[in-house]
Amino acid sequence: TQQLSSKSSLEAPKARPCRVSTADRSVRKGIIAHSLKDLLNKVRDTLLLADKPFYLVLEEDGTIVETEEYFQALADDTVFMVLQKGQKWQPPPEKGSRYQL
Amino acid sequence: TQQLSSKSSLEAPKARPCRVSTADRSVRKGIIAHSLKDLLNKVRDTLLLADKPFYLVLEEDGTIVETEEYFQALADDTVFMVLQKGQKWQPPPEKGSRYQL
Repeated sequence: TQQLSSKSSLEAPKARPCRVSTADRSVRKGIIAHSLKDLLNKVRDTLLLADKPFYLVLEEDGTIVETEEYFQALADDTVFMVLQKGQKWQPPPEKGSRYQL
Repeated sequence: TQQLSSKSSLEAPKARPCRVSTADRSVRKGIIAHSLKDLLNKVRDTLLLADKPFYLVLEEDGTIVETEEYFQALADDTVFMVLQKGQKWQPPPEKGSRYQL
C-alpha cells in the first residue's frame, strides 16, 4: 500500500539527483535537491550566479520549470538549464546529427 | 521498513563499485569507493595523476560530480571520467554511429 501513496511525497520531498547545465552547455553539474526551492539555491551557489536573477528550464526542450509540483513530477536525473536575463534556450547542437537517419 | 530509510545511507556510505575512465577513454579501471573523497584519492593513486589537479565527471554526459551527496545518489558501476586542466569532456565517438541505422 505504500507504493500507492507516492503523491504524498509532495509533503516530504525526497532528495533527488538533478543535472544542471549552463545556457551554453559548457558546464553541467550534478546537484541533489529536495525541492525546486532547494535546487534554485544550490544552483545559485554552485554555478556562482551571484545575485543575478535566473530561472530553470528543461535542457531538452526549454520548458520552464517554475512550480514545486511540476518539479516533483520530474524524473530523477532530469537535466535542467539555467537561463539568465538575455539568455535563450537553444536546441543541443549535436541533436541534428545524432538523430539524423 | 528498512528499505524505506535508504536515504540515511548518506551517514554510513557503503562501498560501491565505480568505473573510472581517462579523458581519452583509452584506460578504464574498476575502483571500489566508500565516498567521493575516497574515490578521488584512489583515482589519484591508480591513474598516477601525481599532484596535478583533476575532477570527476560522468562519462556519459560530462556532468561534474563534486558533492558527496550527489556521488552517493549515483548507481553502482557508474562510469566516471577524470579531467585534468585543459581536458574537456567529449561525447563517446561511437555514439554517432551507434544510433545511425
